[in-house]
Amino acid sequence: MNVEFINPFLASLVNVLSTMAQTHLTAEKPRLKKDEVAKGDVSGMIGMIGPQTKGSLSITFEESLALEIMHKMLGEKPAAIDEEVTDMVGEITNMVTGGAKNMLGEKGYEFEMATPIVVSGKGHTINHKGDGPKILIPFSCDAGKAHIEVCFDK
Amino acid sequence: MNVEFINPFLASLVNVLSTMAQTHLTAEKPRLKKDEVAKGDVSGMIGMIGPQTKGSLSITFEESLALEIMHKMLGEKPAAIDEEVTDMVGEITNMVTGGAKNMLGEKGYEFEMATPIVVSGKGHTINHKGDGPKILIPFSCDAGKAHIEVCFDK
Repeated sequence: MNVEFINPFLASLVNVLSTMAQTHLTAEKPRLKKDEVAKGDVSGMIGMIGPQTKGSLSITFEESLALEIMHKMLGEKPAAIDEEVTDMVGEITNMVTGGAKNMLGEKGYEFEMATPIVVSGKGHTINHKGDGPKILIPFSCDAGKAHIEVCFDK
Repeated sequence: MNVEFINPFLASLVNVLSTMAQTHLTAEKPRLKKDEVAKGDVSGMIGMIGPQTKGSLSITFEESLALEIMHKMLGEKPAAIDEEVTDMVGEITNMVTGGAKNMLGEKGYEFEMATPIVVSGKGHTINHKGDGPKILIPFSCDAGKAHIEVCFDK
């Protein structure tokens, strides 16, 4: 696992949620996802393609945390995951990947981003099917948990 | 909606399932997805990036259909959606997108594919967050339903 490649995603999510939603996540150490299954209620996903590699990223939130982020951003808390929440998760996915893309670009790793997809459904699980290792980064705060999964070929 | 751009995805799914799994899907007419919500139990997703556009594709299966496809391909029917099933859905997603990529390449629309992600979870819904129209193509056969959703920017 190349930490240099993974840390920008970690730093970018902490940064985006702290500046956009005054929500301060604590990250655990990134680890290889093997048999582990991480469930969540709403997930943003995006494809990445560069000259050296291609891959996929997902950011998964528990419902309680997603609703709290909406609350912090808009002043109102929706009762459940609705289109406003999925829009926000799509935006966060774009911003986190864009932030990591900038940091990685400075180090010579270039990639382009596809457009995000957001999945909602209680307790779904994500399976990245690229050839490379799957990296899992867990995050938490009082309002609930989130996790990033990243997988790059090669 | 540019039918020239959408039909290759439709034709490719019908072709892949017919040749790989002797499963003959009937496609409905592609339509714009507006308020409609299409649920499924296992979905393959992939990002696409080309010089003219970028976008995302998802293929969603009801559990009954995903298990029947496994049955037809392997001779054994798993009791539920497991890693073998998500691997198969990831492969189908790659093959369908690759088939459409070839057909579209012949017409001068080029794109590269990211790596697939597969989501499993009862009754989840998919929200493509690209800027362009979201196209929904429903499919069905005796074993259950599937649908493709495609969204390209521009």
